[in-house]
Amino acid sequence: MVLFHNDYNEVCHPAVLKAVNEMAMNQYPGYGMDDLCKSAADRIKRLCENDQLHVHFLVGGTQTNLTVIAASLRPYQGVISADTGHINVHETGAIEATGHKVLSIASADGKLTAQQIRNAAGAQSEAMDAEHTVQPKMVYISNPTEIGTIYTREELEQLSAACKDCGLFLFLDGARLGYGLTAPGNDLTLADLARLCDVFYIGGTKVGAMFGEAVVISNDRIAEDFRYMIKQRGGMLAKGWLLGLQFETLLKDNLYFEISAHANRLALQLRDTLKKLQIPVLVDSPSNQIFPILADCVLEKLGKEFTFNMMERVDQTHCCVRFCTSWATKQEDMDALCAALVNYSK
Amino acid sequence: MVLFHNDYNEVCHPAVLKAVNEMAMNQYPGYGMDDLCKSAADRIKRLCENDQLHVHFLVGGTQTNLTVIAASLRPYQGVISADTGHINVHETGAIEATGHKVLSIASADGKLTAQQIRNAAGAQSEAMDAEHTVQPKMVYISNPTEIGTIYTREELEQLSAACKDCGLFLFLDGARLGYGLTAPGNDLTLADLARLCDVFYIGGTKVGAMFGEAVVISNDRIAEDFRYMIKQRGGMLAKGWLLGLQFETLLKDNLYFEISAHANRLALQLRDTLKKLQIPVLVDSPSNQIFPILADCVLEKLGKEFTFNMMERVDQTHCCVRFCTSWATKQEDMDALCAALVNYSK
Amino acid sequence: MVLFHNDYNEVCHPAVLKAVNEMAMNQYPGYGMDDLCKSAADRIKRLCENDQLHVHFLVGGTQTNLTVIAASLRPYQGVISADTGHINVHETGAIEATGHKVLSIASADGKLTAQQIRNAAGAQSEAMDAEHTVQPKMVYISNPTEIGTIYTREELEQLSAACKDCGLFLFLDGARLGYGLTAPGNDLTLADLARLCDVFYIGGTKVGAMFGEAVVISNDRIAEDFRYMIKQRGGMLAKGWLLGLQFETLLKDNLYFEISAHANRLALQLRDTLKKLQIPVLVDSPSNQIFPILADCVLEKLGKEFTFNMMERVDQTHCCVRFCTSWATKQEDMDALCAALVNYSK
Amino acid sequence: MVLFHNDYNEVCHPAVLKAVNEMAMNQYPGYGMDDLCKSAADRIKRLCENDQLHVHFLVGGTQTNLTVIAASLRPYQGVISADTGHINVHETGAIEATGHKVLSIASADGKLTAQQIRNAAGAQSEAMDAEHTVQPKMVYISNPTEIGTIYTREELEQLSAACKDCGLFLFLDGARLGYGLTAPGNDLTLADLARLCDVFYIGGTKVGAMFGEAVVISNDRIAEDFRYMIKQRGGMLAKGWLLGLQFETLLKDNLYFEISAHANRLALQLRDTLKKLQIPVLVDSPSNQIFPILADCVLEKLGKEFTFNMMERVDQTHCCVRFCTSWATKQEDMDALCAALVNYSK
Repeated sequence: MVLFHNDYNEVCHPAVLKAVNEMAMNQYPGYGMDDLCKSAADRIKRLCENDQLHVHFLVGGTQTNLTVIAASLRPYQGVISADTGHINVHETGAIEATGHKVLSIASADGKLTAQQIRNAAGAQSEAMDAEHTVQPKMVYISNPTEIGTIYTREELEQLSAACKDCGLFLFLDGARLGYGLTAPGNDLTLADLARLCDVFYIGGTKVGAMFGEAVVISNDRIAEDFRYMIKQRGGMLAKGWLLGLQFETLLKDNLYFEISAHANRLALQLRDTLKKLQIPVLVDSPSNQIFPILADCVLEKLGKEFTFNMMERVDQTHCCVRFCTSWATKQEDMDALCAALVNYSK
Repeated sequence: MVLFHNDYNEVCHPAVLKAVNEMAMNQYPGYGMDDLCKSAADRIKRLCENDQLHVHFLVGGTQTNLTVIAASLRPYQGVISADTGHINVHETGAIEATGHKVLSIASADGKLTAQQIRNAAGAQSEAMDAEHTVQPKMVYISNPTEIGTIYTREELEQLSAACKDCGLFLFLDGARLGYGLTAPGNDLTLADLARLCDVFYIGGTKVGAMFGEAVVISNDRIAEDFRYMIKQRGGMLAKGWLLGLQFETLLKDNLYFEISAHANRLALQLRDTLKKLQIPVLVDSPSNQIFPILADCVLEKLGKEFTFNMMERVDQTHCCVRFCTSWATKQEDMDALCAALVNYSK
Repeated sequence: MVLFHNDYNEVCHPAVLKAVNEMAMNQYPGYGMDDLCKSAADRIKRLCENDQLHVHFLVGGTQTNLTVIAASLRPYQGVISADTGHINVHETGAIEATGHKVLSIASADGKLTAQQIRNAAGAQSEAMDAEHTVQPKMVYISNPTEIGTIYTREELEQLSAACKDCGLFLFLDGARLGYGLTAPGNDLTLADLARLCDVFYIGGTKVGAMFGEAVVISNDRIAEDFRYMIKQRGGMLAKGWLLGLQFETLLKDNLYFEISAHANRLALQLRDTLKKLQIPVLVDSPSNQIFPILADCVLEKLGKEFTFNMMERVDQTHCCVRFCTSWATKQEDMDALCAALVNYSK
Repeated sequence: MVLFHNDYNEVCHPAVLKAVNEMAMNQYPGYGMDDLCKSAADRIKRLCENDQLHVHFLVGGTQTNLTVIAASLRPYQGVISADTGHINVHETGAIEATGHKVLSIASADGKLTAQQIRNAAGAQSEAMDAEHTVQPKMVYISNPTEIGTIYTREELEQLSAACKDCGLFLFLDGARLGYGLTAPGNDLTLADLARLCDVFYIGGTKVGAMFGEAVVISNDRIAEDFRYMIKQRGGMLAKGWLLGLQFETLLKDNLYFEISAHANRLALQLRDTLKKLQIPVLVDSPSNQIFPILADCVLEKLGKEFTFNMMERVDQTHCCVRFCTSWATKQEDMDALCAALVNYSK
């Protein structure tokens, strides 16, 4: 059985494991107050072309989302998200458990537009009884989105301008950031993200690390006392240097982006195959998640060799499913998947 | 200026004020541990035809909603609501501030159906990764709804059965309950509500009291230690007997229902006038809130004599607005409003 | 039976009830956006000699405490309180339910000193691992305290200076403020409180109102969006004008202070009687709460005519109890209590 | 510089790292739904001699504490802890951030007694106004405690009986459990813990793992939907099999206990040295944390070669500090520390 149902099925990229092995018996102070974390943070600041940034390392995505959002909002404020946003549908109400409403906006492609933000904020500021409703204060986006689409620089510039105009923080969830920044059509850089967002993160868990997300904060209001927030929410790893080491390893020599590009290439092979077979997709994703709509009989056969995610039933005989590639996906496995699709679609 | 923008513009019904005056210098123990509260609670149990019920008195609606819901749910559980539900849009995220997500469902008429509940609960119970999503555990409905519509007994029976089948609590917000139970077409009684809901409340604030909501709990799991919840959330009135006294006054001799029926009669006069004038309404409400869609030029003129609520802009020249009647609305004021509508619509 | 177990056993002072009767059928807009609230707020600002203050009206004390504290703190911050503080022991964890730790400090007389604050804040700021502990950000005091003692101006000046030096907000719970400001030995004024505290409140529930607490905020950071906080926590009274009216009535013509002084005079009569009888007290309270330590046999006899609060067992044959007077206490009832004490102590 | 300031200064025990290397490119399903987690959970159940237990793996201690406690309590309930308890002083208010008060009890040796629990619960159940105070529902203890002391079986039996009598859950924080269960004087086994506690955890982070805590739940009420709680609080590791693998490696062939015993042996060498030098200690700890009270001049010299934790200033010239040993501490480093102590104390 070959696992295509997500992009975190293996421990980590060999270079990361090698680095862990090499320093295994060194002694380090705890909680991220070590040289490896400092070194990785400095590298991220250089990549983001801004040495005033604040960089923190956390273990996982839900933890990162809830910590960043709780650090940013006053109790009566909420966070705007596409209805498909991870925080809205796939984190067991982690944001609400910190006391904040997720203000969801319908989105067909998983993205939010500047106009949607301006409308939502405008409705609030013009309301006679504004204090009876949740005050929007942050916008949460994912890049790539939960359905694989990506933002262009132009779109993010406009979104950022809308947020600034409306007094909103812009938070970009980069759990799969590598796959987004190496997707065909991408024109964003880490420096752009640092410039346009108040806070974003560089995902490690899904892009070659054992675990870990690197939070990059450009807004000092969010950065204030952020380590208190991490500790309180249970996200402060005792052996924090493991996080610094992993990001240092992934980000030096461009490894993070090379392995992401590998995953995208294999995903696009799948996309091309689907196109040739005239199999429809939920959305035209350029990154490592592909969402074909397949007949149940095809899915039944595929399910004997490959894993994938059930997204939703489309009609009585078809479902939308998700295939993920990753840094670890083998060419031969993708060839086998594509061959199977061709074969079962005859 | 005559106020039609809500149903709580005056202190209270004269009978309530008279009762307060009569016992003003009596001494009572605090926090609802007095004979007046006991007497009112007993009367409510009799009206509900069930002496096993638990009755508590709180001051206001938002407070009641957040206390009931926080008392009912474990941290990862959420409450299903129509998207128009008061808890979803008009309480500044009070539910989320207790840690729980409001799971909203689109509704054209402000009501939820048994089928919607079964679908939502079914999706959760069949999910492979259910623990990544909020677990629905309670259904919140309002009767009358925020847009004036009411549930029939048949509808509530089905909703209650769906909740029982799916292991969900059913909570009915009765902030305007009097207006609902005396609306044309209503076939529900207090005893029905006590039988079909796990918890509901009889609204006082909007139906003749100075303030106060009487919570009626039939499910022992929700009732357990409920006074701790009231105290912790700031809802335990020091001079609790004021609540008991008000409900005792309103509920004896059928006053609560008589004054509600009065409000409905005047609202229906407005509804009939709108119908004759062929003015469209948002929804065909049989209770004390009426939602006409009026031309801006008409609204401008009306606004000089009457207050009303702006609901939403419908098109470039029309808005949907709300007129409320109450126990206190005078026949002559409604006559004036209807005459003005006739006049300005010429 | 005469009730001495607290200071909120009657509906309200006759002048307040008269005022309610007089405007009972007037129409007002809801939620405190009315002229009566504005008028009362303006009067409070004049009494505090500062027209930049922010004044809000809430219904009860626990509600006020939790709303003010939740509005003031970021999630990892806590509030320092004497271990006897109401928020620490008598509000069912209402503060913790908003996510914040109460950092209690042992206090024999119910008060906190400037030195205690400097020590607590200093320990935090010098800690190597400060982010592993709750960050103190607010100091909560009561005046009079929960055991009747009062702060002098000198003490409050020093406490306020310590808070400013340490970057802490100072919050004074004035649930019984009238009794404190009219106690023998008091040299504080409302203007002092507004100058020395970031936020305080003027208690109505225990000093002649039916209900209500007037929050006075001098610190703009706490004041920001405070109405959102009130609404979210369920403290926004629909018929808010009832609050404005009550404070307007109590604060004009000095009524609030006259009725408080009356209560203190009767309490001091009790204190003098106890002194003559050489009955020890928990603390030498100058205000309306008196805490004698009495033999069980005396308490048994007293309990047949008077109510009082059990505070704690002192030894096998004695308990500390509390007697409260109020604006409503009658001279003849205090005479009877003192006579009974004399009689039973023979 | 040799690090003695805590017991998590190295990545992990070599056997753990070897195991990670061996399965590094295997594919596993996410979130702990894999065979390695199942296998480790089954092993723990066997070691606890109870196959009805529920075992879950989390990443760190604060996260585990807040998740277990939030899963166990209703909103108005609190958790009793020694004042030295980790949850009370060293987790940035993580428990309060879930809405619950930590009810601290003074303790000289870091432990709680059955009598203290009975007193606390008794006071609550006898109170006239119980609902005005937090309801105790859980007792939190650590073994070994934060100051190195351990519970005997007799003590834990009594504590467990007191909890059962009073309707309280008993939760044992085993962040350093290996060091406790192998300390001289210990007579507890894992099976005892599973029998006497409602929930406890086997600490990995401080006892040889890279990270990880194994939660063992015997009470079905706490176990219900526990994975929802883990996910919501951000503790569900994507690559959950890393947790299963580590506990499987540590717990098979008794490795966990052997490496703990090693740490204790070295700590006792330090304890004996201190005794010979007549250097006082905070408490007579039998486990891997030792708390000598040393002169500032000695500490200054030691600080050039060794790290340790500052606990508190004892007098003008002495401080109490903490030295930790671990599975990774080398005999030669302990010899050097003891020699230095002998040398500097001359």
